[in-house]
Amino acid sequence: VTAPIITLLTDFGTADGYVAEMKGVLLSGAPTATVVDLTHEIPPQDVEAARLALARCWRRFPPGTVHVVVVDPGVGSARAALAVESAGRLLVGPDNGVLSPALLAGDATVVALPVPPGASATFHGRDVFAPVASRLAAGEPVASLGAPWPTAIVRRTPEAHRLLDGTVQGQVLTVDRFGNLVTNLTARTGGAVLVGGLRLAVRRTYADVHEGEPVALVGSSGFVEIAIRAGNAAYVLGVGRGARVVLAPG
Amino acid sequence: VTAPIITLLTDFGTADGYVAEMKGVLLSGAPTATVVDLTHEIPPQDVEAARLALARCWRRFPPGTVHVVVVDPGVGSARAALAVESAGRLLVGPDNGVLSPALLAGDATVVALPVPPGASATFHGRDVFAPVASRLAAGEPVASLGAPWPTAIVRRTPEAHRLLDGTVQGQVLTVDRFGNLVTNLTARTGGAVLVGGLRLAVRRTYADVHEGEPVALVGSSGFVEIAIRAGNAAYVLGVGRGARVVLAPG
Amino acid sequence: VTAPIITLLTDFGTADGYVAEMKGVLLSGAPTATVVDLTHEIPPQDVEAARLALARCWRRFPPGTVHVVVVDPGVGSARAALAVESAGRLLVGPDNGVLSPALLAGDATVVALPVPPGASATFHGRDVFAPVASRLAAGEPVASLGAPWPTAIVRRTPEAHRLLDGTVQGQVLTVDRFGNLVTNLTARTGGAVLVGGLRLAVRRTYADVHEGEPVALVGSSGFVEIAIRAGNAAYVLGVGRGARVVLAPG
Repeated sequence: VTAPIITLLTDFGTADGYVAEMKGVLLSGAPTATVVDLTHEIPPQDVEAARLALARCWRRFPPGTVHVVVVDPGVGSARAALAVESAGRLLVGPDNGVLSPALLAGDATVVALPVPPGASATFHGRDVFAPVASRLAAGEPVASLGAPWPTAIVRRTPEAHRLLDGTVQGQVLTVDRFGNLVTNLTARTGGAVLVGGLRLAVRRTYADVHEGEPVALVGSSGFVEIAIRAGNAAYVLGVGRGARVVLAPG
Repeated sequence: VTAPIITLLTDFGTADGYVAEMKGVLLSGAPTATVVDLTHEIPPQDVEAARLALARCWRRFPPGTVHVVVVDPGVGSARAALAVESAGRLLVGPDNGVLSPALLAGDATVVALPVPPGASATFHGRDVFAPVASRLAAGEPVASLGAPWPTAIVRRTPEAHRLLDGTVQGQVLTVDRFGNLVTNLTARTGGAVLVGGLRLAVRRTYADVHEGEPVALVGSSGFVEIAIRAGNAAYVLGVGRGARVVLAPG
Repeated sequence: VTAPIITLLTDFGTADGYVAEMKGVLLSGAPTATVVDLTHEIPPQDVEAARLALARCWRRFPPGTVHVVVVDPGVGSARAALAVESAGRLLVGPDNGVLSPALLAGDATVVALPVPPGASATFHGRDVFAPVASRLAAGEPVASLGAPWPTAIVRRTPEAHRLLDGTVQGQVLTVDRFGNLVTNLTARTGGAVLVGGLRLAVRRTYADVHEGEPVALVGSSGFVEIAIRAGNAAYVLGVGRGARVVLAPG
């Protein structure tokens, strides 16, 4: 039998020891688990950034993987704590939209988790989500861990809109470490992208332009990106998250 | 048999490859071990920050876990290299107070480790502590690894002081990634905290105040914290590590 | 049988989810593997920094370890994707010099990897290197994964030069997290180092000088370093990567 896989996606950073506490709880509850860091560098309380990171990777892991997602500005409030089964993967996290990629896919099963007596009101990652993740890793079914939760708030991906003139209006969803602008536009090579006063043909890869030149391309998740070859597009173009991007027919 | 767990807590960052070298040594010596990153983002040479991170998590891991703690400004000097058994966990690190949480708990066994011939004078993490951690993970007893060390310097938690007027004087021990001020005061909800010119009632969680408002609460380790809901208390209040905090009766 | 070890060394950071995607692919292909983070904090597209980090650690891991090295500014261009067997370790990464430590050692076997149909033109880490790493971890021989690649570009370590006057001229190769200046000079204690207008005797360790004083010593990889005890040499001395350093006879 393969060891169960438990992943962690948080906005805790690592310096303060919060992630370390969660790992201790996970490995105490599931000593044979493989605990995998997805990231702890989500900007503090940035639910949207966490949702995007989760969207990229949650289905890349094998069925049975348990994803623990803790970006939780409402910890200790009335927001529900969820466990989800979707597409064969298991997820736990707060009901604030961070789990949307799994909630929107297939026929997700969702339960609301009880908060155990004595749990800290400020650290459900350690006292609610990690213990449940250990139990899921050990094979307990989602349905046994809480009550069905029919009213989950699901925050969806901001969608691009097709206009009457044939263009599609989207936005920059995130700026990655390289300064690449990742949008919510889907495209094939051949069209053109309007962003920050520039019109860029949609190319195949960075190396299709010279160093220092801007390029639009279809990124690795299928969405249009704007980059500067060997440079930082966000910095050079002065364009950031939320900026409008328009896709024109090819 | 469950794979042995070895954790790493350092101030090395990861970019330079020092942590990678230690992982190579650990997995060469203990190929079945689960190597767990606690953090490598302790500020350079900040023994106190490392002590606090260790205090949070070392007992959360199962008995038998080996914690490797290397924040070691005195490397190569006469400071001792220690191996400790405490509360069923095993720890290695320099004798500079970083291991205090384990040294202060229960009936700790402490030995001083020899420095092997050929060890680098600047990287005992790789050449002294990692090899010993592998041997501890393989089941070698602490007592066999070095000579008893009766004179360990133990740096204790800065303690809060009760004054004649009934207040308790403490300080901010650390500022976490969210800008929360973590103190050395213990309290129950009901009292009030004086900090940076403010008087704050001790509440249960962040969501007990409006966004942008300051709140005092009992944090997840049992100590009083001061936070700004959806904000950064250190930045907004202009209060940092070492600042005085006073707890007044409820 | 011990679980196979797969390490990751990238410039992706972790916040964007790219590393998480790779881990999902690796664990889907090799569910029993131990996936080890070496670093993801290489500065964006800094092949030389990645080469240095790899040089430090690749042989510290046990034979059979698979190192996945993705710092890849030329992704999607004509640069080859390589798999290497060297000194019993296995490596995958782009043909841009990042794998030099392994290519220069012993009798390396090198093949060029095919790009599978449907692979993203901007993320070979996920679609080319991770799948091959899983297969190497499962025991497939390097020779079966691609065509022999006799023309690999190998970028060598910048070498120090001995001058007629007996001095050796080198440079600062990197500045580590502590601000230590790591050079390409090899030395034994006894000589002296000229850097940034200072002449420093080569000592054994940081503690051989007072706090705040500069010190030259032979670092843990055998190269001369310049440090400030309990300080940051790069900042205090105003010396950075590429700066000239001269070694004078003792």
